[in-house]
Amino acid sequence: MPIYKAPTRDTRFVINEVLQLEQFSQLPGFENAGADMVDAVVEECGKFASEVLAPLNLSGDQQGCTRNADGSVTTPAGFKEAFRLYQEAGWGTLSSPVEFGGQGMPHLLGFVVEEYVATANHAFGMYPGLTAGAVSAILSKASPDLQAKYLHKMVTNQWLGTMNLTEPQCGTDLGLIRTRAVPNIDGSYAITGTKIFISAGEHDLTENIIHLVLAKTPGAPESSKGISLFIVPKIMVDDDGSLGARNAVTCGSLEHKMGIHGNATCVMNYDGATGWMVGEENKGLAAMFIMMNAARLGVGIQGLAQAEVAYQNAVRYAQDRRQGRALTGPAEPQEKADPLFVHPDIRRMLMDAKAFTEGMRAFYLWGGLLVDLSHKAASEEERRLADDMISLLTPVIKGYGTDKGFDTCVQMQQVFGGHGYIEEWGMSQFVRDARIAQIYEGANGVQAMDLVGRKLALNGGRAVQAFFAEVDAACAAVNDKPQLAGLAGQVEKANGELKAATMWFMQNGMTNPNNVGAGAHHYMHMMGIVGLGLMWLKMGAAAIDALAAGTGDKSFYEAKLVTARYFGERFTPDVGALRRKLETGSAAMMELPVEAFATA
Amino acid sequence: MPIYKAPTRDTRFVINEVLQLEQFSQLPGFENAGADMVDAVVEECGKFASEVLAPLNLSGDQQGCTRNADGSVTTPAGFKEAFRLYQEAGWGTLSSPVEFGGQGMPHLLGFVVEEYVATANHAFGMYPGLTAGAVSAILSKASPDLQAKYLHKMVTNQWLGTMNLTEPQCGTDLGLIRTRAVPNIDGSYAITGTKIFISAGEHDLTENIIHLVLAKTPGAPESSKGISLFIVPKIMVDDDGSLGARNAVTCGSLEHKMGIHGNATCVMNYDGATGWMVGEENKGLAAMFIMMNAARLGVGIQGLAQAEVAYQNAVRYAQDRRQGRALTGPAEPQEKADPLFVHPDIRRMLMDAKAFTEGMRAFYLWGGLLVDLSHKAASEEERRLADDMISLLTPVIKGYGTDKGFDTCVQMQQVFGGHGYIEEWGMSQFVRDARIAQIYEGANGVQAMDLVGRKLALNGGRAVQAFFAEVDAACAAVNDKPQLAGLAGQVEKANGELKAATMWFMQNGMTNPNNVGAGAHHYMHMMGIVGLGLMWLKMGAAAIDALAAGTGDKSFYEAKLVTARYFGERFTPDVGALRRKLETGSAAMMELPVEAFATA
Repeated sequence: MPIYKAPTRDTRFVINEVLQLEQFSQLPGFENAGADMVDAVVEECGKFASEVLAPLNLSGDQQGCTRNADGSVTTPAGFKEAFRLYQEAGWGTLSSPVEFGGQGMPHLLGFVVEEYVATANHAFGMYPGLTAGAVSAILSKASPDLQAKYLHKMVTNQWLGTMNLTEPQCGTDLGLIRTRAVPNIDGSYAITGTKIFISAGEHDLTENIIHLVLAKTPGAPESSKGISLFIVPKIMVDDDGSLGARNAVTCGSLEHKMGIHGNATCVMNYDGATGWMVGEENKGLAAMFIMMNAARLGVGIQGLAQAEVAYQNAVRYAQDRRQGRALTGPAEPQEKADPLFVHPDIRRMLMDAKAFTEGMRAFYLWGGLLVDLSHKAASEEERRLADDMISLLTPVIKGYGTDKGFDTCVQMQQVFGGHGYIEEWGMSQFVRDARIAQIYEGANGVQAMDLVGRKLALNGGRAVQAFFAEVDAACAAVNDKPQLAGLAGQVEKANGELKAATMWFMQNGMTNPNNVGAGAHHYMHMMGIVGLGLMWLKMGAAAIDALAAGTGDKSFYEAKLVTARYFGERFTPDVGALRRKLETGSAAMMELPVEAFATA
Repeated sequence: MPIYKAPTRDTRFVINEVLQLEQFSQLPGFENAGADMVDAVVEECGKFASEVLAPLNLSGDQQGCTRNADGSVTTPAGFKEAFRLYQEAGWGTLSSPVEFGGQGMPHLLGFVVEEYVATANHAFGMYPGLTAGAVSAILSKASPDLQAKYLHKMVTNQWLGTMNLTEPQCGTDLGLIRTRAVPNIDGSYAITGTKIFISAGEHDLTENIIHLVLAKTPGAPESSKGISLFIVPKIMVDDDGSLGARNAVTCGSLEHKMGIHGNATCVMNYDGATGWMVGEENKGLAAMFIMMNAARLGVGIQGLAQAEVAYQNAVRYAQDRRQGRALTGPAEPQEKADPLFVHPDIRRMLMDAKAFTEGMRAFYLWGGLLVDLSHKAASEEERRLADDMISLLTPVIKGYGTDKGFDTCVQMQQVFGGHGYIEEWGMSQFVRDARIAQIYEGANGVQAMDLVGRKLALNGGRAVQAFFAEVDAACAAVNDKPQLAGLAGQVEKANGELKAATMWFMQNGMTNPNNVGAGAHHYMHMMGIVGLGLMWLKMGAAAIDALAAGTGDKSFYEAKLVTARYFGERFTPDVGALRRKLETGSAAMMELPVEAFATA
C-alpha cells in the first residue's frame, strides 16, 4: 500500500523562512496568517490529506466511477464520506471571500491545501478543484442576482462547479465550438450541445452541480469572439434558494482514461438546458480565462504533487529493498545484500526528485504569494509587479511543473524495477495520473506559446526583465555565502542563457514567427530551471541563516545546502543545451512536406 | 482505431543501401540474403504484422488474459489464430539453425521481424519473443540429448520457451534466489520455488511450454556462483517426443500490470517439478546471460517499436485534426482552422520522433549485422571486432533505445491533446506498453552499469576505442559532402565529449567507483546520441549517393537529409550537458544520510 505523509516541515520552511510571510502581515487577509496560523493550517490539512484522502487513492483507481442507468454517477467507495469531511472542515474555502462564506486567508494557503489534497488523491482533488475557478469567474463577471443565488453554496462547497469548454471537434481552438444558446423570453437561454472531457461533470458528492458552459448565441461571430459564458445548474434553483426541477443536462457517458479513474470525466449532453449568461454576450472567453488561469496554477501544483508521493514511496522502497552491493564494498555486510539506496543510479533518481520537488514547492508557493500581492500589496506599483510576474510564471509553473513532475514519477517508478509496473504497488497510478496534468487546462505546448507568444512581449518585456533582475539579485545577494558560490555561478550563467535566448527570439521572430514557436517548449523549460535555481538560492540562503542562528533542526538545513549544490550541478547544464537547440530555429523543423511523414 | 503500416521502405534503405548487406554475400547464411530476398521477407512480414497482428493490439489490451480455475490461461481473442499463422509462416525461425528446423538466415532479418511484430502488437510478440534466447542457451549449453528432445519443436515454435529468473525477493541480484533443485536418482531434479513476472509463463498458444529456470542445488554457494539452469517442461516429453504427464509447475496468478495486458505475466509455482540441468552445475548464470543478451537487443527494438507506431498515429492525427492557425497566417483559409501540422511545437514533437525512430532503426540493424559478423565474418579479427562492438552497444541499444522510445511515445500522445488520454485512441496503450521495456531484461540503470562498469574497460577499452574510431571515420568520410558538414561537426564534437567523459571516468573512478556509477546513466545516453549521429551520417551519405545516382524516390532521400540536419541541431546539444553533469561526480549525490530523504 503506497504511503503519503504531507511534507509540512518543508512547506513551513518555505512560507515562514524563505518567503517570510509575516512581513506582509499588515496587508488585508494576511493579518491572521502569522506563523502560528500557517503552522496549524499546514499540519491539520496535512493530517487530513494523509489520513483521510491518501488511503482512498489506490482503491479509487481500481474501482473507478460508475455511470448508472439513470445517468447518475457513483464515485468510488469512501469518496462521498471523505468529501463530507473535506467540506465540513472548510478546506476548500480558505482563500475564498468572507462575504460569501469563505475564510479570506491568503491564496498561498489555499495552494498548500491544493498540493496536499492532489498529492494524497489526485482524482478526489479534481471534484472541488475547479470550483474555485468557477467562483472567480462568477465573482468578477456575473450579475449580483446570479452571485446571490450561487456563490455562497459554491464557496462553501455545498455545491461544486465545472468548466465546460471542450467539444468533440475542438479543445484548444474554442472558436470552433458548436453548442448553441437560444434566448428564452424570461432572459434565460436554452443551451444545446455536447461537451466532452468534463471533469466532475456528474457525481454523488453534492446535491447540486453548477456547470459553467461556453456556447454561441444566434448570429454570434464564428471566431472565439462569438463565445458567451453561461451558468447551467444541474438542478434548478428557486428564488428562495431551494432546489427545483432537474435541468436538461445529463451525463451521456464516462470517458475511459489512462488515469484519474476516481474522477468522473463526463460527456455532457445539453438538450435545451436552461442557463443564464455570465457577463456580456460574446465576451465569454475572457471570463473563462479567469477560471483557466487559477486552474493552470493548480495543475502545475498537481505536477509536483504526483512527483512528491512517487518520491516518498521510492525512498521507502530504496531503503527496504536489498539488491546487490555498494560499489565501494558491502555497506551492510551482515545482510545478504545492501539496500538499493547505496547504488549511485538509484541515488541519482532520488536526488533528482528531491531537488525538483522541493524547488518546485518553493516556486509555486512564491507564485501563490504573487497572486495575493497582485491583489493586496500596498502600492499599485507592487501590485503591478506581482501581477506581471505571476502572469509570466503561470505557464512555466503549469508547463515545466507538469513535464518535470511526470518525468519524476516515471523515474520513481523505475526505482521499483519490475514491481513498479505492477498496479498494486501504486507507482503506475502516480505515472498515469500525473500524465493528464501535461494535457489539460491547455496542453503544455499551448502553455509554451502563451509564454513566448504573449507573456514575453507584454508591455515591452517588462515582466521578463523583472524576472531576470530578480534572478540576478538573488545571485548577488549570496555573495557573502561561499557555500552557495557554485550554485550562484551556475544560476547566473543559466540566466544569461535565458536572456540570450530571449534576445534571439526578438531578433529572429520578426522575420519568421515559427522561429519563436520552434523554441517555445525549450524556452519554457529553460525558464523553469532558472526559476527553480532562483528558489534554491533563496532556500540555500535561508538555510545558512538558520544554521548561523543555531535554531536547531541542523540536519534539515544541511540537507537543503547539499540539495542546492546538487541542483546546480545536475539541473542547470540543460539550460545551455536547450538554448543551443532553440537557436537552430525552425528551418529544418518546418521544411519537410506532409508527405515526408507518411510511412512507406 | 490506431493504424500501423510497417516501414518497409525505411528498413530496405538501411539494409540494402546503408549497411549494404550484399557485400557480405560470400559469408555463410548471407548467400540467400540478397536484396530480392530481403525485400520479399520485409514486405511479407510487414504485411503480416500490419494486417494480422496490429488489429488485435487494442482489443488485446482491453481484454487482457484470463486465468481459469484450473490454472490454465486464455489469451485475448484472436491471439491463438494469429499465432497459428505466425508459426506456420515461420516468422520465428528466420535466423534459427537449419539443423533444428530454422531457416539459417542472418540475425539482421530476424531482428526486422522482431521490430514489426513488436510494433504491431507488443504483448503478442512477447509470446514467441523469449523463445529465441532460450534456444540459444540450449544450443550452446545443453547436452545433445536435451537438444534432440527440445530444440526442433522450440525452433519451429511448436513449443514456446520462457525465462524464469525473478523471485519475490530478487530480480537484479540473482544470488538471492531461493528456488531449490534436488537431484532425483534418474539424473533429473525436483524443482521447488516461486518465480514471478514470468512473461508467457502459461497460455493457450502451444501444446507445450518449455521453462528455463534458475535454481540452487543443495549445498550450492550462496552467491550468484551457486546458480544452475534447468529445463522444466510444462508437459513431460517422452523419449519418442510424444507428450506425457503434466509436470508440477502451475501458474498461480496473473500480475496486474500497467500495460502489455495481452501478455500473460505469471506467478509460476514449482512444486517439485521435474527438470533437467542445462550445462554445468553452478554455471547457470553464464547460460542465462546467453538468453539475456539476445533478449536485451530485442527489448531495445521494442523501445523503437512503440515509438514508431505512436509516431505513425500522431502523424495521422496531426493531419486530420484542425485547431488554430499557422503562426505565419492561415495555411488553409478555406477551412475553419488549419491542421495541427502547421504548429511548430507539433512539428517539433513529430520531427524528434522521426529523427529518433529512423536513427534507432539503423542503429539496431547495424547491431543485428554485428551479431551476424561476430559469428560469421571471414577472419577472426573481423569476428572479434564485431563481437567487441555489439557487446559494447547492447546496453546502449537496450537502455537508450527504451528510454528515448518511451519518451517518444509520451510526446506522440501529447500531439493528441485530451484524446491522447482516452484509451480508445490507443496512445495510452503505446505509452503503457513501452514503459516495461525500460524495466525488464535488466532495468536501464543495470544496463548503464553494464556499459560503464564492464564493457568500457574490457580488454583495455578496445571496444570503446573502436567505437570512437568508427564515429571519427564516419565524420571524415563525408568530407566531400557539404550537405553533411554541419552534422559531421556536431557529431564529431559530441564524440569528443564522449571521449572526454570516458577519460574522466578513468581518472576519477579509481579513487571512488561511485564517480562512475553516478555518471553511468548519462554516459549511456551520450553514447546513444553519438551512435544515432553515426547512423545519421551514414544514412545521409547513402541518401546523397542515391540522389547523385538519380535512382528515383527523390523525396525519400531529400527527407533523410533534412532529418539528418534536424538530428544534428536538436539531439547533439544534450551530449555536452550530459557530460557537464557527469563530471560533477558523486559527491553531492551520495552525501546525504538516509534520514535526509524522510519526509517530515
